[in-house]
Amino acid sequence: MATDDAGESLAEVGEFAVIERLVAGRRQPDAVAVGPGDDAAVLRAADGRTVVSTDMLVQDRHFRLDWSTPHQVGRKSIAQNAADVEAMGARATAFVVAFGAPADTSADLALELADGMWHEAGLLGAGIIGGDLVSAPQWVISVTVLGDLDGREPVRRTGARPGDTVAVCGELGRSAAGYALWHNGIERFDGLLGRHLVPEPPYGQGRVAADAGATAMTDVSDGLLADLGHIADGSGVGIGLRTDALSADRDALAEAAAALDVDPMAWVLGGGEDHALVATFPQAPPNGWTPIGRVLDGPPRVLVDDAAWQGNPGWQSFD
Amino acid sequence: MATDDAGESLAEVGEFAVIERLVAGRRQPDAVAVGPGDDAAVLRAADGRTVVSTDMLVQDRHFRLDWSTPHQVGRKSIAQNAADVEAMGARATAFVVAFGAPADTSADLALELADGMWHEAGLLGAGIIGGDLVSAPQWVISVTVLGDLDGREPVRRTGARPGDTVAVCGELGRSAAGYALWHNGIERFDGLLGRHLVPEPPYGQGRVAADAGATAMTDVSDGLLADLGHIADGSGVGIGLRTDALSADRDALAEAAAALDVDPMAWVLGGGEDHALVATFPQAPPNGWTPIGRVLDGPPRVLVDDAAWQGNPGWQSFD
Repeated sequence: MATDDAGESLAEVGEFAVIERLVAGRRQPDAVAVGPGDDAAVLRAADGRTVVSTDMLVQDRHFRLDWSTPHQVGRKSIAQNAADVEAMGARATAFVVAFGAPADTSADLALELADGMWHEAGLLGAGIIGGDLVSAPQWVISVTVLGDLDGREPVRRTGARPGDTVAVCGELGRSAAGYALWHNGIERFDGLLGRHLVPEPPYGQGRVAADAGATAMTDVSDGLLADLGHIADGSGVGIGLRTDALSADRDALAEAAAALDVDPMAWVLGGGEDHALVATFPQAPPNGWTPIGRVLDGPPRVLVDDAAWQGNPGWQSFD
Repeated sequence: MATDDAGESLAEVGEFAVIERLVAGRRQPDAVAVGPGDDAAVLRAADGRTVVSTDMLVQDRHFRLDWSTPHQVGRKSIAQNAADVEAMGARATAFVVAFGAPADTSADLALELADGMWHEAGLLGAGIIGGDLVSAPQWVISVTVLGDLDGREPVRRTGARPGDTVAVCGELGRSAAGYALWHNGIERFDGLLGRHLVPEPPYGQGRVAADAGATAMTDVSDGLLADLGHIADGSGVGIGLRTDALSADRDALAEAAAALDVDPMAWVLGGGEDHALVATFPQAPPNGWTPIGRVLDGPPRVLVDDAAWQGNPGWQSFD
């Protein structure tokens, strides 16, 4: 897919000419003082602090080019990085991207990847302000996001306190359900299939949570139980979830789960890559956030309906 | 080399436990408000602007684990990114790193890589404040550097003016000479062999150049002629070099060049990856900088002793 497309290859066009095509006609946000084309970019950060996170996506590990279009891969790579900034209570302002691909990759596919990245960045009012383009045996995409706290204090994983309400914003289990459908060759459930390829983080809600006094927050990248486990560990607290509070997610997945004869709650609790936000609040969560449990005294652990969860708790890189 | 080492593998140790080992005991600079272990890091940027650049290194393309130790690969990956920040007249303050490797890679080698990165970052007073660790078919290292201008204006590639003096700081041709020695299995010339594995950018000299009024600057990553070509194109000027001004670099390479029966000046003019700095100055260059030519009227081009250079002008990613 990356190599059998018509059109000139990266090698035929040449590194610098490809970069020119990738950069041409893009509109940079006002915060960009120096954009692509120099040794480094310069981004204004009026807050006096910069939020930064990075993720690497490897072909056939984090995406497949027989499932995803390059445009979808581009959107996903930006979205998952932006979600990390949201989870601090900040706003993504800019991205830099390193892209490795075989020399015979069609330059058009690289352009489609960049278009997807710009599409997703555009949803945030952000831009792609720099990058690197190299030869690699397979596609590798490494994105670094920069974000602005706009004067807010960062919401860490360490501040959850017993008695806080645990609440979620965004949908759970869709990406895992979509993966299972793709993996089993089931072509119904277009929405879930698509959601596995392009997550839809609840952009802007990280700041809403911060302003509502969130004491801890993270995005659901490894799975709800795994990511709440990080908050439990970081804050030295227990967390108790109620599955009845997750019934809307379970019900949305019920038909696909029936088609695959699995428990939809396993996707809701264990499925990563949806990049919903989950946070803890001393007061009632803000509009758009659903209470799903409570922070508990006691050792760091996550209980589901007062018991340990028996299923897969989430994703690790080398499984 | 990556896989036959003793010790537990990344898969055996597990993603989160490996990350704990990589992070343990590191001393973060004062500018780090939130370090590794959360969704994103937070770096203070008192200047109100952030300088950012990214590079990807792919095993067997940008480094070989039968030539380099992981420590050397780590140093190189940090150094080449730091040089991009130097070339803007700024100071590297922090790095984020994404690392992809096969699941059977020894965790000890990953730790050695991180040690090398921290060693090089320490030369700058900087820290590694976040990262990602993923499974990949070969080693892939993607580094993003953040830097601070400390109130300076960024020195771009676009400001060179006819009459300016072209000057260089740092050594040229060493990395290319070292590569040729490695490639031909010649085990003398330890200094050059080592310099190919770990470049030595002239840290701090980017700020010196900015303070001395540099009108344009870049680091020598693709080769002196190629990188001066970027300044010529960006500034719309010609550049004339004098090879007699480069005799110290040529002489330092003469013995190795004789062993390989090549022209040492080809390494000086065409060899990349040394990450020396080259800049243009309306006045005399500051101490530590060597004048090597002059900015000319006329079309963007780089002349060597008043003529076009006939050798290889430098590196491109998909050659």
